[in-house]
Amino acid sequence: MKYEILDNITKGAFPKSKKIHVHGDLHDISVAMREIELSDTIHADGAREKNYPVTVYDTSGPYTDAGYRVDLCKGVPEIRKQWILGRGDVEPLKGLSSEYGRHRLADDTLNNIRFPKSNIKPLRAIAGNTPTQYYYAKQGFITPEMEYVAIRENSRIDEYRQNEVQHPGEAFGARIPLSHITPEFVRDEIAAGRAIIPANINHPESEPMIIGRNFLVKINANLGNSPTTSGIEEEVEKAVWAFRWGADTIMDLSTGKNIHETREWIIRNSPVPVGSVPLYQALEKVAGVVEDLTWEIYKDTLIEQCEQGVDYFTIHAGLLLRHVPLTINRRTGIVSRGGSIMAKWCLAHHKENFLYTHFDEICEILAQYDAGISLGDGLRPGSIADANDMAQLGELKIAGELAEIARKHFVQIMIEGPGHVPMQMIKENMDLQLKYCGEAPFYTLGPLVSDIAPGYDHITSAIGGSMIAWYGTSMLCYVTQKEHLGLPDKNDVREGVITFKLAAHAADLAKGFPGAQIRDNAMSKARFEFRWKDQFALALDPEKAMSFHDSTLPDEGYKMAHFCSMCGEHFCAMRTSHQVKALASKLAEKADEFRQAGKEMYLKS
Amino acid sequence: MKYEILDNITKGAFPKSKKIHVHGDLHDISVAMREIELSDTIHADGAREKNYPVTVYDTSGPYTDAGYRVDLCKGVPEIRKQWILGRGDVEPLKGLSSEYGRHRLADDTLNNIRFPKSNIKPLRAIAGNTPTQYYYAKQGFITPEMEYVAIRENSRIDEYRQNEVQHPGEAFGARIPLSHITPEFVRDEIAAGRAIIPANINHPESEPMIIGRNFLVKINANLGNSPTTSGIEEEVEKAVWAFRWGADTIMDLSTGKNIHETREWIIRNSPVPVGSVPLYQALEKVAGVVEDLTWEIYKDTLIEQCEQGVDYFTIHAGLLLRHVPLTINRRTGIVSRGGSIMAKWCLAHHKENFLYTHFDEICEILAQYDAGISLGDGLRPGSIADANDMAQLGELKIAGELAEIARKHFVQIMIEGPGHVPMQMIKENMDLQLKYCGEAPFYTLGPLVSDIAPGYDHITSAIGGSMIAWYGTSMLCYVTQKEHLGLPDKNDVREGVITFKLAAHAADLAKGFPGAQIRDNAMSKARFEFRWKDQFALALDPEKAMSFHDSTLPDEGYKMAHFCSMCGEHFCAMRTSHQVKALASKLAEKADEFRQAGKEMYLKS
Repeated sequence: MKYEILDNITKGAFPKSKKIHVHGDLHDISVAMREIELSDTIHADGAREKNYPVTVYDTSGPYTDAGYRVDLCKGVPEIRKQWILGRGDVEPLKGLSSEYGRHRLADDTLNNIRFPKSNIKPLRAIAGNTPTQYYYAKQGFITPEMEYVAIRENSRIDEYRQNEVQHPGEAFGARIPLSHITPEFVRDEIAAGRAIIPANINHPESEPMIIGRNFLVKINANLGNSPTTSGIEEEVEKAVWAFRWGADTIMDLSTGKNIHETREWIIRNSPVPVGSVPLYQALEKVAGVVEDLTWEIYKDTLIEQCEQGVDYFTIHAGLLLRHVPLTINRRTGIVSRGGSIMAKWCLAHHKENFLYTHFDEICEILAQYDAGISLGDGLRPGSIADANDMAQLGELKIAGELAEIARKHFVQIMIEGPGHVPMQMIKENMDLQLKYCGEAPFYTLGPLVSDIAPGYDHITSAIGGSMIAWYGTSMLCYVTQKEHLGLPDKNDVREGVITFKLAAHAADLAKGFPGAQIRDNAMSKARFEFRWKDQFALALDPEKAMSFHDSTLPDEGYKMAHFCSMCGEHFCAMRTSHQVKALASKLAEKADEFRQAGKEMYLKS
Repeated sequence: MKYEILDNITKGAFPKSKKIHVHGDLHDISVAMREIELSDTIHADGAREKNYPVTVYDTSGPYTDAGYRVDLCKGVPEIRKQWILGRGDVEPLKGLSSEYGRHRLADDTLNNIRFPKSNIKPLRAIAGNTPTQYYYAKQGFITPEMEYVAIRENSRIDEYRQNEVQHPGEAFGARIPLSHITPEFVRDEIAAGRAIIPANINHPESEPMIIGRNFLVKINANLGNSPTTSGIEEEVEKAVWAFRWGADTIMDLSTGKNIHETREWIIRNSPVPVGSVPLYQALEKVAGVVEDLTWEIYKDTLIEQCEQGVDYFTIHAGLLLRHVPLTINRRTGIVSRGGSIMAKWCLAHHKENFLYTHFDEICEILAQYDAGISLGDGLRPGSIADANDMAQLGELKIAGELAEIARKHFVQIMIEGPGHVPMQMIKENMDLQLKYCGEAPFYTLGPLVSDIAPGYDHITSAIGGSMIAWYGTSMLCYVTQKEHLGLPDKNDVREGVITFKLAAHAADLAKGFPGAQIRDNAMSKARFEFRWKDQFALALDPEKAMSFHDSTLPDEGYKMAHFCSMCGEHFCAMRTSHQVKALASKLAEKADEFRQAGKEMYLKS
């Protein structure tokens, strides 16, 4: 492998931003955040008003830390290593447990593409131990990971902004805290099965994050190579790119060559949890012949990936043989890759889904690594016509049964959701998920609220996504503008991530998450005061905001101008509004005079 | 003026589409629609299944009619001319009533930029007559315009598709018809003040369309030059471009040079209603000095534009002097251009808003031309912090009073709405509008559900827009991705229009508008059957859909392929789903055998 990406990878801080670290009280932890510095307001009389910095949740890891030297061949720092080992419930193995993993390791022809520091002595639970966050939470322990996410979720509330004005939210039965998140609250939510911290013991590089409806809404970005496109370099570059723009987790959905080695590169360089769909790799191992899939091959793949450090697995165990006939008269049949594979396998063998029949064993394996489950929705609707049908809801009920089983094994679990659903049917879907699945976190793809906008489906799905997140979904899987049409490129990844950050944030505001409005308030103040550079810095996508502004007014001087090209100087409402404010102040001084003169119009309320 | 746009303007039919015309029963009218031809389905056994064409609502006018020769110097056909004259209640004037209009006409230096066939003998009501659609509706008449929109609204329901499956909608008290729209229903809704047909008697070129919450949700695109950018050619080109992609109305917000002449070119070439904000031109007439604005200048501007054919005017009459102090402590003050101008005028003169004090006179003028009112929301919130505040809601109450006055004069009126509103506060806003304004149609800008996404605000506003349209808004004003940053270019116009067509359509589906799901169903069937060209043709933006598909698989052969580059051949769920369907059919034949063998899993429901 030529390490050209070392030079080309996008790194460096965002405008006016720096990395800060907040320390824990219970544990020796240091939580990374991004602090955006703001300029002073300069009032008409020349007086200066200080604008305090805004601290925001930061998924970008060390890549945006000006003081950090990126070395993709070493991976990012193993911040959780000591916490994991410190619990004394895991041990390094002598070698890889997976037959396939050992086979790849022994293959010298792969040396030039293999991650230099591959994890060849992975950790696993010491017999009789259960090193999962869910287990600790049930025992009443607050792990460093739990304290980390508690501090992280509060990033937008600093000492200057405790009293920031925010509209009350409407939370549909969610228990959003009134002021801030505590470590105890995190523990309780995990213990209740309402939240998870995906945190494989073999992915010590990941900065802990929490997925649950009483926390900030998270987003996932899908990446991965395909048989026809992109190699390891491109995938690592896309991953780092996705972290930069705000992906809270990524999923590696590779179906092409060297899946094992690609994943290793991604995980070692990922400061966010990594998900995967083991079925894809299992199918590659049998050369794409669905009928040849076996539980043994799948199991070996699961172990292989657990020992690499995958934090959560999409497992299509809720799709049963009896559901398949329910899809026959659908407008778009089965549109989940994993779902269509398992349906075909069930029919070909006239057998029940082996992921369902071996679900206990799957949980036993995952519990040893604290790998989580994202229960796949193999029967999600792929069209408005198929929304909330018997196939979809039948599978959702089974998902609820399986969530119960996972909890018995102390495995962290969330449930995947649709798909294509028109607006008026989204709430029903959310409510049924909460009911069937004992409030396990919901993780949805969209939903897309129409079928007729290919090329714009990041928007179609952001509409449904923001609504379902408001109603209670914990994490949104991004959809790119290439959905239904082709493989997303780097630009599509960025557009998709930002669009879903926006949808997630809109839901945080709507639910009334504490401090969610701080960034909006700071942006609007900067906007009203024509602090253009502060506006760019506070934007979800500073670069695009700046380039749009500069496309008509590129000169540096216009970054101080009290107008932009949208309305021009004389029609700038905000500019005029300042004049109104000044006039109104003068007028206020004369108010008594007017009242005495009986100017009735001032007296009406 | 060099007529280069004659050659360069975008025209021609969409892929697989042709213009069709549906004739009226009550009147001699011919309603233009777009018919999308679909290919046959070819089943595995080689059998062909016919897919009937899908007819869609078409705003593009004759520009997409293959048989029509575009001549921008002549304007589009005056399809309403005879209907208007036939009612016998209007007469051509001897010349322009507006002093400014006459002044421009007499200026020979403008000859080279003036529309060749300028309307110099405009129509006006014969004294004692009221030629408005609202007046006719109240009298029980069904005008050709009313029958036209009834037929037009039903475009998606043709004889083949009466029984198309559609999910029931949730309409929040709207009276969405169960099957199709009748001319009587149109008349009744207009008579009730719940819908308007903007249709100035001096804009006979416009194809009638209706704005009301029991009809399809409409969208508006804002255009217009600015002091620094773009001339007449560019503005006409942008207008035709906006019609093509789906703008139901356009607003000419020009604030630059030659506003009068630019508007004439736009109106004469516009098959959709044209709105304007007369205040902008009035302010240009006093060289941008707000204090110098007078009722007389405004009134002359209003008459000038009425006689050019503007179909509706944004009039900021609801902003009163007593509201202004309510904006002083806002996060972003007054963000409406018209609102800030009127607020400044009120304060500068210590007088009540002259648009409010002269509102009766305004209505008297407008009634003579059937020009409608779009009551401006000068105090709409410009930030999440300012949403649904006393300033905004105070103005909304006055809007309700003014709507009552307009109705007394038989003037058609709708009410403009916000702005920036977080998701949980959108429904309250909609409900209050219906309550305060006697169900007059609501016409909103967004709302934007967050402040932090400059560069993506077409999406921020499409999220809020689709929700408020579902709750009851009749027309959405598009927001482009350049919002808050700069002036939109042609590409921004297209992205904005398509994004809002999508939002409007999502709301039509959610409300259960009859036939709304037909296009989605056809798209999904085409998708499941890998009819790529049909998918492109059915897409809101066929060109973008095709270009995204072709960016990875450009060869013609791939337009027949049973997969795309998104998942590749072996991981195409739909492809596998077809195999599942085939297997399931075989299995069904064996079902009895299995049941006898007691295969329990088949018996569970």
